[in-house]
Amino acid sequence: MNAEILAVGSEMLTPWRQDTNSLFLTEHLNAIGVAVRFKTIVGDRRTDIVSAVRAALTRTDILIVMGGLGPTEDDLSREAVSEALGVGMRRDGSLVAALSARFAERRMTMTDNNLKQADVIEGAEVLVNPNGTAPGQWLDTACNGFRKLVMLIPGPPSECRPLFEEQCLPRLRQVIPARKIARRTLKATMIGESAADALLAPIYSTYTDVETTILAGNCEIQLQLSCAKATLEEAQVRVDHLAGKLEEALDEYLFASHDETLEQIVLYYLELKQATLAVAESCTGGMLGERITSVSGSSRSFVGGALVYSDALKSEFCSVAPDLISAHGAVSAAVAEAMAEGIRRRTGATFGIGITGIAGPGGGTEEKPVGLVYVALSDGSSRECSENHFRGDRQKVRQWATQKALDMLRRRLMH
Amino acid sequence: MNAEILAVGSEMLTPWRQDTNSLFLTEHLNAIGVAVRFKTIVGDRRTDIVSAVRAALTRTDILIVMGGLGPTEDDLSREAVSEALGVGMRRDGSLVAALSARFAERRMTMTDNNLKQADVIEGAEVLVNPNGTAPGQWLDTACNGFRKLVMLIPGPPSECRPLFEEQCLPRLRQVIPARKIARRTLKATMIGESAADALLAPIYSTYTDVETTILAGNCEIQLQLSCAKATLEEAQVRVDHLAGKLEEALDEYLFASHDETLEQIVLYYLELKQATLAVAESCTGGMLGERITSVSGSSRSFVGGALVYSDALKSEFCSVAPDLISAHGAVSAAVAEAMAEGIRRRTGATFGIGITGIAGPGGGTEEKPVGLVYVALSDGSSRECSENHFRGDRQKVRQWATQKALDMLRRRLMH
Repeated sequence: MNAEILAVGSEMLTPWRQDTNSLFLTEHLNAIGVAVRFKTIVGDRRTDIVSAVRAALTRTDILIVMGGLGPTEDDLSREAVSEALGVGMRRDGSLVAALSARFAERRMTMTDNNLKQADVIEGAEVLVNPNGTAPGQWLDTACNGFRKLVMLIPGPPSECRPLFEEQCLPRLRQVIPARKIARRTLKATMIGESAADALLAPIYSTYTDVETTILAGNCEIQLQLSCAKATLEEAQVRVDHLAGKLEEALDEYLFASHDETLEQIVLYYLELKQATLAVAESCTGGMLGERITSVSGSSRSFVGGALVYSDALKSEFCSVAPDLISAHGAVSAAVAEAMAEGIRRRTGATFGIGITGIAGPGGGTEEKPVGLVYVALSDGSSRECSENHFRGDRQKVRQWATQKALDMLRRRLMH
Repeated sequence: MNAEILAVGSEMLTPWRQDTNSLFLTEHLNAIGVAVRFKTIVGDRRTDIVSAVRAALTRTDILIVMGGLGPTEDDLSREAVSEALGVGMRRDGSLVAALSARFAERRMTMTDNNLKQADVIEGAEVLVNPNGTAPGQWLDTACNGFRKLVMLIPGPPSECRPLFEEQCLPRLRQVIPARKIARRTLKATMIGESAADALLAPIYSTYTDVETTILAGNCEIQLQLSCAKATLEEAQVRVDHLAGKLEEALDEYLFASHDETLEQIVLYYLELKQATLAVAESCTGGMLGERITSVSGSSRSFVGGALVYSDALKSEFCSVAPDLISAHGAVSAAVAEAMAEGIRRRTGATFGIGITGIAGPGGGTEEKPVGLVYVALSDGSSRECSENHFRGDRQKVRQWATQKALDMLRRRLMH
């Protein structure tokens, strides 16, 4: 079954506020096998809410209307849903009594506008809200011959979330056949999104029962797989089966089979091989060290390194011969390799990485343009160096440089 | 005029991802007097996108369709909009040529699926996207006799936001009557949001014609001021008048009067005083260096430093006496100060900063708990050290530590 979440409230159409309840609702709906097909955010105008409800009823089985149930003039969800469904409302005597009691208990005067919270749409069940004045409503109805479940629930998270869990979910479970969802996330790097999709679409498109989403960003590709079946085991088998084929196709581009970060994978292999790492960073200025040390426990494999932004420090901390720098320039394969080997020797680490390049926006020449970055890896007996031409702004070039460095080390460690 | 923002992408219907571009778009739309009336989020199914586009065209003047413009099979926004409008598409020869050139320039093979990015809806203008392969599209059309502006823009924030600012806003301004808005952003750090609001609300609340928003995050407070008047001069006078009073009240907490970053301010003062900086980082592992070098031109004042994650490297690169470490422990004021002075002397910089602490989640003791970080600053003749107890996860503790280091240096440089 499919659902649409309709969040009502003008504040969520400003640049500062977002609906976040829908993430919570989505997680719970997915867990019982309901996919969220649409989310709509609408302000406090009655005509807009009516239009949104009508659109939703044409396209999904379950509609959750969230917010707009309070006592003020711009709380119009009840009125809008009843108009969109073409049914009336009645003022519920026991709700009026409960409201009066609630105010009396707090020794507050109940203003008349509160009474609209006792209005119930014809055919609706009242959903008790122990955390606020506005109750929810549950409608099991039909539209153009199709069964529709419509819920009205309050907007404040402290009311919405418990009410949904305690009142709506048990009712939904009675209607929906139980289904379990299995998920997995694979990650690859150094392959473009379109190249990955060209490679993988012929595979994943044959698995019609597994939903595959490709996301690109942060110098990597994510493949999110999910599958809903009667049991979790059944669903997991299908996800794992497809994942196996995708992993095989991605080959060395794949770095994570279960959503791990590249930093985590590199540190995992370093520890497995009882190896240590030191870095010498020029244009990345600490970004590689920062990424590695963002992982808790990285001190077991990462000894540290040097930020050799100036030429003098390249010699001071990485023992790079000044002659080498004047012969090749600070941005050169020779200097990157000397930095990698120099920092390795000075720190006693198993591996050394050296990064030198032109992050921009200034500093580029025709011979050495912005985006040119040399990344070198040394283990004492052998050295390798890659010449890269990265695109994008300063921060993007630096991100790609650290990504390349981590990926070179990952590939070396895997063999 | 009214707008609807339609975000396309199945990942935004999961419990983990949210559309955030719409907040950015809303801010810019509001600034030119356009109200956002609806936001809709829809997955990568063609029928769903068509349904969402059709609903939007019945209720708003401006429709912004965001995402689903890439090369993969599930990028279907072009197809869906053309179906909803009932017009055809043509493959644009110059876009095909631009795509081929882009791939050739990167020495990559262009797979056939990329070609669909050259499909243009009949009557649409192409919106150049310098940051990605998929161009945007602009349609000035009519639906049932009403004028409709429809924009297709890419989903990734790094493509969506510049394209909207550079291509869509100028076109929208030609259609919409002008209003002049002056803005300013002040920034402060090391003061809490509620403390800042208690201090500032009595001031800004008397300026009813200036809108003041306080945002907290990334270890700083932002005060966004904006004012709309008939002329920009009139609006600017009011914004600057309020800004002056707020700056006075914030005193030394204020670090930026015109939206500068803390890194920029520190580098500005270093250059002004012809001073240089070196850093020795333990628990922050490169984050301070990374932040400083994220600013273009930082090499004029930043010489580099050392990532002294291990005790041995604290001695090797910062000349910290091993005895000092065994007497006080690596996380101590004495070691932080020795790191600051050691890295200063070794690099010949004017100022040295040393950071040592326990970022967590492991490694804490009763005496030295997670979040304890010493930040020291030395200029050779004098040293200062602050003991901090930061809250939050590993990354938050590290962010606060680098923020504190930059702010200590800023305060020193201001005197």
